[in-house]
Amino acid sequence: MKNIRTAIIGAGYRGRYLITLLQKINLFDIIAVSDISPNLSEIISQLFAGEKIPKIYNSGTDDYRRMLNENTIDLVIIASPWHLHKEQTIEALKSGCHVAIEVKGALDIDEYPDIIHESRQNKKQVFPLENTLFRNDILAINNMIHAGIFGRLVFLQGGYRHDLTHILIDQTGNFGVQNGSESEWRSKYYKTENGDLYPTHGLAPLCMFLGINHTDYIKSITSFSTKPGLGLHACMAKRNGMKYTDIQQHTFRMGDVVTSILQTDSGAQINLLHDTTLPRPRSLNYEVQGTNGIWNAEKNAIYIDGLSPFEEWEPEDKYIEQYKHRFWQQWESEALRYDGHHQGMDYIMLRVLGEALQGRENYPATLEDMATWAAVSPYSKISIQKGTSIPFPHF
Amino acid sequence: MKNIRTAIIGAGYRGRYLITLLQKINLFDIIAVSDISPNLSEIISQLFAGEKIPKIYNSGTDDYRRMLNENTIDLVIIASPWHLHKEQTIEALKSGCHVAIEVKGALDIDEYPDIIHESRQNKKQVFPLENTLFRNDILAINNMIHAGIFGRLVFLQGGYRHDLTHILIDQTGNFGVQNGSESEWRSKYYKTENGDLYPTHGLAPLCMFLGINHTDYIKSITSFSTKPGLGLHACMAKRNGMKYTDIQQHTFRMGDVVTSILQTDSGAQINLLHDTTLPRPRSLNYEVQGTNGIWNAEKNAIYIDGLSPFEEWEPEDKYIEQYKHRFWQQWESEALRYDGHHQGMDYIMLRVLGEALQGRENYPATLEDMATWAAVSPYSKISIQKGTSIPFPHF
Repeated sequence: MKNIRTAIIGAGYRGRYLITLLQKINLFDIIAVSDISPNLSEIISQLFAGEKIPKIYNSGTDDYRRMLNENTIDLVIIASPWHLHKEQTIEALKSGCHVAIEVKGALDIDEYPDIIHESRQNKKQVFPLENTLFRNDILAINNMIHAGIFGRLVFLQGGYRHDLTHILIDQTGNFGVQNGSESEWRSKYYKTENGDLYPTHGLAPLCMFLGINHTDYIKSITSFSTKPGLGLHACMAKRNGMKYTDIQQHTFRMGDVVTSILQTDSGAQINLLHDTTLPRPRSLNYEVQGTNGIWNAEKNAIYIDGLSPFEEWEPEDKYIEQYKHRFWQQWESEALRYDGHHQGMDYIMLRVLGEALQGRENYPATLEDMATWAAVSPYSKISIQKGTSIPFPHF
Repeated sequence: MKNIRTAIIGAGYRGRYLITLLQKINLFDIIAVSDISPNLSEIISQLFAGEKIPKIYNSGTDDYRRMLNENTIDLVIIASPWHLHKEQTIEALKSGCHVAIEVKGALDIDEYPDIIHESRQNKKQVFPLENTLFRNDILAINNMIHAGIFGRLVFLQGGYRHDLTHILIDQTGNFGVQNGSESEWRSKYYKTENGDLYPTHGLAPLCMFLGINHTDYIKSITSFSTKPGLGLHACMAKRNGMKYTDIQQHTFRMGDVVTSILQTDSGAQINLLHDTTLPRPRSLNYEVQGTNGIWNAEKNAIYIDGLSPFEEWEPEDKYIEQYKHRFWQQWESEALRYDGHHQGMDYIMLRVLGEALQGRENYPATLEDMATWAAVSPYSKISIQKGTSIPFPHF
């Protein structure tokens, strides 16, 4: 079977990491890369030293369109800043390509519905690059759920708890430094939005566990925010020598912690957190609780009624090993060899993407799933603004 | 100084445990005990073997009134079933006694306001026996908070996550067994209520940390419930040989997991869980997150910006030791010797109660605090029923 002719849009930190993994999977040929960086040529030459160098497109933000026109492409992978995803995805679909897009929250309620429309119109697929779905523990827990080990699922927790102040604020206390990096485009949302900006890592596995969009549906969202700006102001003050007067000119809309309660048709509930401006170790806060047991990822522990010692957590390891997913049974050693930075999940994700495009596997999430996860962003903002529950959209 | 003449109402499991601790503290003289049990005489004789036997009152549910009339009592301790607390507390206050009451949720919105009225009317105090406030870790964390180590508090979590199915359902799957035990009176609430039945253990320390009723106030509550009865039905089926038809006659109103979001005037937020009918190890789910650090009790771990290694949890122990509260500095060894079952917190609580009554310490919670914690029960029910946020009462 012929390799997948692959083009990349966005060769920043994330795009380059994906390229290094794609090079290790003999299903993909990277034929072109687009990015506005003036250094793109050197970047790509270094990445492809000793290999066939892909064509590069870096003459401005529209040069990716020329790339789409000039080449025969099977798959476009998009890892650009958030506000460019929609246009680039739609252009790629119109050019007859499948698309794999990096995950993020929806910037408005129409973003993913419009992409769904184009995908159906052009009969091309869009694959969400949600790497958490490919974690060894997540896939094993999913197997356990389908084997009935946890009973019926009742209550799930997840979140994005990751202190981003090292991206948002520089070491002398300046907010949103204008250096062309992620700091520049990501920070502005903290001044203009209050909601869950980045829901997918915390939510996507929980939706897979619950069968959301298959056997159950999210029916409502209710979101809450702590007082805006407390963490950012405190961080700026710490880094600029406690000159509080200077920093009060910065007003923020984003609360440090946003809680979203998602209720499903079947009566299950997801509590989701967005927590990115307070100092803390990282966590995706996963917990899965059913009528027969519970998994808590923070504790790396499982409790199963009748199997575990009464009221005692067990280490998750033996269960994760016992219920290991076939993806990990097949590809674990190469995943860990090439993708130590993300514990193999990015490698497994791209491997499954390639297998799916060649018809040997089902990719475990659809564009409609992506639309569901991402909808938490705009609908959480509406819920916080209105102070009420909001009906959740179906896609 | 003369010892505190103490009378007990309720000599069940909890009341007897309190008696054994009071006997170890040379500030209290237990002069009378009231309970409806026909075996009260033997129970008390055993508990007080070799000591002065208190008078006993067990001629029916009103016999405690005779006890209040016939004796000169400084302090009445109430550890009876929930529905008796209000009447007994008010009678004790009217008799001129101080009262210490076991904690629980309010059975209706008037319960504690009425008690507050009587307490003020009679100029007698009511002390909530909330033992979590006296835990070594809780008191040390409180010291750290007041020393500014966590910065300004932003987001707190707590809960009562304790599988009570061994109380609510017997080993052959019968619900609410009629044997005069806790099963009988506690189980009925699961058929008639949907809300956080038992909020105080999860909430009281968080209110102390935030200065609720002193420098901040809870302004609203919004509560959510998973589908009622899933855990109870599954448990009954497991224990009765999976005869699902028999158990469907039992309808429950209580959701397995009730989430309450409490927002404060200052913009802080508490996420509180009630989770008592799914199999799991116990947890009070404490987490305290501020602008400078976070404590997670489930992980027994702390992270402080600038002190902890970047993004790495530290074991809490050294902090708990460094910020040990004076209660624990003074009484730790006797607390652990006499109260191993509750890691010393019940002993410390009763010791501080005695010291407070003799004017040497301030008890760290008031009747108004108890009213605040307990109000979560009726107001969570109203919020779930109405599907909206509800303004939270001040006392």
